[in-house]
Amino acid sequence: MMRQAIETLTVRTRGRGFYEITREVQSRVQDAGLHTGLCTLHLQHTSASLLIQENADPDVRRDFDRFFARLVPDGDPLFVHTMEGDDDMPAHIRTALTTVNLGVPIAEGRLALGTWQGIYVWEHRTAPHTRTVVIHVIGDGDTSRGDRA
Amino acid sequence: MMRQAIETLTVRTRGRGFYEITREVQSRVQDAGLHTGLCTLHLQHTSASLLIQENADPDVRRDFDRFFARLVPDGDPLFVHTMEGDDDMPAHIRTALTTVNLGVPIAEGRLALGTWQGIYVWEHRTAPHTRTVVIHVIGDGDTSRGDRA
Amino acid sequence: MMRQAIETLTVRTRGRGFYEITREVQSRVQDAGLHTGLCTLHLQHTSASLLIQENADPDVRRDFDRFFARLVPDGDPLFVHTMEGDDDMPAHIRTALTTVNLGVPIAEGRLALGTWQGIYVWEHRTAPHTRTVVIHVIGDGDTSRGDRA
Repeated sequence: MMRQAIETLTVRTRGRGFYEITREVQSRVQDAGLHTGLCTLHLQHTSASLLIQENADPDVRRDFDRFFARLVPDGDPLFVHTMEGDDDMPAHIRTALTTVNLGVPIAEGRLALGTWQGIYVWEHRTAPHTRTVVIHVIGDGDTSRGDRA
Repeated sequence: MMRQAIETLTVRTRGRGFYEITREVQSRVQDAGLHTGLCTLHLQHTSASLLIQENADPDVRRDFDRFFARLVPDGDPLFVHTMEGDDDMPAHIRTALTTVNLGVPIAEGRLALGTWQGIYVWEHRTAPHTRTVVIHVIGDGDTSRGDRA
Repeated sequence: MMRQAIETLTVRTRGRGFYEITREVQSRVQDAGLHTGLCTLHLQHTSASLLIQENADPDVRRDFDRFFARLVPDGDPLFVHTMEGDDDMPAHIRTALTTVNLGVPIAEGRLALGTWQGIYVWEHRTAPHTRTVVIHVIGDGDTSRGDRA
């Protein structure tokens, strides 16, 4: 039988950087007991992103940081909205250039991620923040429990 | 019991800029009478985007406009596809750098957006256009009506 | 009655460029026999993207290629992670600037795409690769077969 669940995951960031949540999300998906389905993640903020990226070499994330620091520099004189700090408007733009929404299918009880894919909260503000990810799952229960549609 | 609904929302733009649709989408979600579920928005165009961003200070959106005008300038001599105007190819690229797809969970009958999140159609063409957003909702009915799975 | 299906689509790329998969995805959606629903595509890689863009004029895709080659140049001395080639780190960044996830509603048995929208796998590596797209569909069966919820 088709069913669903919704919950939230809280991520406490220590400022700009990448915070992997793959295991936490995977664990919530397994707790939901779905065999096949869809997991949607929604980050409830406008100055941090959700990112699926390589979780092997940490240099990849360092290069991401350097590239985005050049593409959307803090303190760019172009920006008018600076009351909340030099890194605020760049944080909004980095968020728009990436995403706050992910939809990942669930196959055989697990997120159908590729071998090298990890899910990250990418904090764009320089100060620590508390970030909330809403996790929604929908699908069929575990076949071994005989409740598949 | 699990159920779904699909409908369209038409947005008439007055040229490049941000058109907030949060209330309209929220209202459609409430009409659907779902307690818990998933709302997917799909914009059927290649030169306008869906954007979730801060809906408080209008300077944020002005800075977005200035940043993207510098990042993907109209009339850039790099572009070959210019028959439909100087702003056409930049509009396609701005769309690819943002998104035409959003998936937002529904909790307690409402979109699970963050406090500062608003949903916008971001028109990238300079001329007015009629834009269509497909809204799909799936989930469980209102518990007060006794039809939750 | 609500039901779902999950399968994979394999795309063999010949290096950097756009590989349209609209027809293949449309065909899988039709095989699933859903009248109304949601189709989620997830690309299981970190150096290729999913892109919805204009499928009419090939110049559009050529301009995309030129713009991204300038925005995220191969061999940029900024990058530290270069062991897998000059095009590897740019491929990761191009992926983050676009997306690996799409959610498209299904209406009357077909993807609710706009007239000019095509779905592409955008290969960002210069060498050929085998790319996997997970396709998940959920929704109601064809009304003509009398099984709509």
